Amino acid sequence: MAELRREPILQRWVVITGQPWEALVETLRRPRDKSADSCPFCPGQEHQTPPEIFALRDPSTSQNQRGWSVRVVPNKFPALRIEGEIERAAEGIFDRASAVGAHEIVIETPSHTADWDSVAVEQVAGVLRAYRERSLDLQGDERFRQIIVARNYGPEAALLPHPHSHVLALPVVPMRIESEIRGLLDYYGRKERCAYCDILRQELKDGERVIRETSTFVALAPFSARYPFETWILPKAHGHDFGSTNSDQLLELAGLLQRLASALHARLPALAYSLILHTSPLQRFIEPRYHWHIEMRVRLPVGGGFEWGTGFLINPLAPEEAARLLRDSA
Amino acid sequence: MAELRREPILQRWVVITGQPWEALVETLRRPRDKSADSCPFCPGQEHQTPPEIFALRDPSTSQNQRGWSVRVVPNKFPALRIEGEIERAAEGIFDRASAVGAHEIVIETPSHTADWDSVAVEQVAGVLRAYRERSLDLQGDERFRQIIVARNYGPEAALLPHPHSHVLALPVVPMRIESEIRGLLDYYGRKERCAYCDILRQELKDGERVIRETSTFVALAPFSARYPFETWILPKAHGHDFGSTNSDQLLELAGLLQRLASALHARLPALAYSLILHTSPLQRFIEPRYHWHIEMRVRLPVGGGFEWGTGFLINPLAPEEAARLLRDSA
Repeated sequence: MAELRREPILQRWVVITGQPWEALVETLRRPRDKSADSCPFCPGQEHQTPPEIFALRDPSTSQNQRGWSVRVVPNKFPALRIEGEIERAAEGIFDRASAVGAHEIVIETPSHTADWDSVAVEQVAGVLRAYRERSLDLQGDERFRQIIVARNYGPEAALLPHPHSHVLALPVVPMRIESEIRGLLDYYGRKERCAYCDILRQELKDGERVIRETSTFVALAPFSARYPFETWILPKAHGHDFGSTNSDQLLELAGLLQRLASALHARLPALAYSLILHTSPLQRFIEPRYHWHIEMRVRLPVGGGFEWGTGFLINPLAPEEAARLLRDSA
Repeated sequence: MAELRREPILQRWVVITGQPWEALVETLRRPRDKSADSCPFCPGQEHQTPPEIFALRDPSTSQNQRGWSVRVVPNKFPALRIEGEIERAAEGIFDRASAVGAHEIVIETPSHTADWDSVAVEQVAGVLRAYRERSLDLQGDERFRQIIVARNYGPEAALLPHPHSHVLALPVVPMRIESEIRGLLDYYGRKERCAYCDILRQELKDGERVIRETSTFVALAPFSARYPFETWILPKAHGHDFGSTNSDQLLELAGLLQRLASALHARLPALAYSLILHTSPLQRFIEPRYHWHIEMRVRLPVGGGFEWGTGFLINPLAPEEAARLLRDSA
């Protein structure tokens, strides 16, 4: 039975799912099947997934049939289960909670292989719209404290090659968001300003690490980039909630993400990357001083032992150089 | 020019090395050369490394020649440079410091392929002695605030197959150690007890997650294990400094590490794993409330995008089950 657990030192929440780990290890080790033959996310295979929760589809077509451009389904192997109340308990000095939450898959396009740079901008905007609609819907559930959107692209990042994203609703605030909020509140306490807003002001003035600026967003290589080509995308105006982004802004963001994907593909053959959307926690934990944003990182197949163990990262590529390379390609 | 950088939110230090990233990406992507033909760590190839700093060797042999059982050399491609003063400066709201530090390689055995379970226990104790001697020596340098020992084994973790470890001396305290100390001090403030000591007491009483206990050490699967088979090794008596471990204790620890490596190899064919040694910061930053320990994790080739972006981890294998499996094999 899946459950959430936390120890008293780092206070990091972990889900212990109790899934068959040997099968999982074997799947991870197996060469990735890139063909569309048995892909459960391809058109015509809609019966292979749980029934859809949301779709952008031709109005003349039926649910769970062909005719969609973006489709959201529950994960067939969810890390969290959607039913039930959240029970919290101590086990001596440790904390447990039931692993209740949502784990949905956004199937981004009918194409088995297309990344964001090789589809129409409206297709990417449709994916972002699915993120927003699912976020808004899940926000209504009082059991959840955090929505997270994550996207892995490429063989070193994703198990299934068909482009897809994860939308998760968690009954706890994950450690990384908590640490960010602690840092932001500490900064706010000293300066009465948002640290992300200050970063934006400084980077836009300086320009060296800016990859691209649109009317609403900035893509930049962060000053202390942890990975080669790490990229942050921030709304220029302070806002804590991704869910309040309007459709024009989503289209603008889609265009920016396309250009970034295209620039990364131009610089890195056989690119694999991960993208994560950070937004404010929910319900009683809403933090208006949070500044929502997207983080992207390239995935490389080896290393990370030291980084894992220390949180101290070694990055060969200066963000100024990364920004220059991506600016030239974007 | 390499430098350390930190942003004001998470306050994580990163080294930007400015090494050729394209060559690095290519190296990471290339299939690992497992043969000993061009291995710079094999006996007879001593001229391929910088001159040795420390070695356990036959007294009749000369430095930088054959005849060693454990050999420590500076990393040929260090993330930090050993010479120079540490200059600290602001860049607007960001922090910079010069990337001064030590980055040494412990070549663990003359054998090109032997993991710890297939050599004599004295050989592993020799590796631990090298960790200790190098730690004690580097601790004397007032520029350094933290010693870290990291070991990656297997093709998904290490670039060079010849078993080796890294010893790093950092001029800053890495984020993970700072977070641990913050958690420990918070716990101490409420209870006047060390949280690791409390975890040990509870786990030893309960027994379910204990893998193996010796007179000085306990190996356990932590309650909120982040990865399948994550293992912590803690000294039972509170101590903040790995450097004060005596030779009998190192031999005992070597035996325990051998058994763990053997149990992991028995459970996971083609095992890759990482190990990290966490000890108190140095100099003015010594923290007697720290409890030194070793953390081990299995490395798997895919995934981690969500984990990277949230610090919220999904582990399929319950630590109680992992402890049972390793106990049975160890």
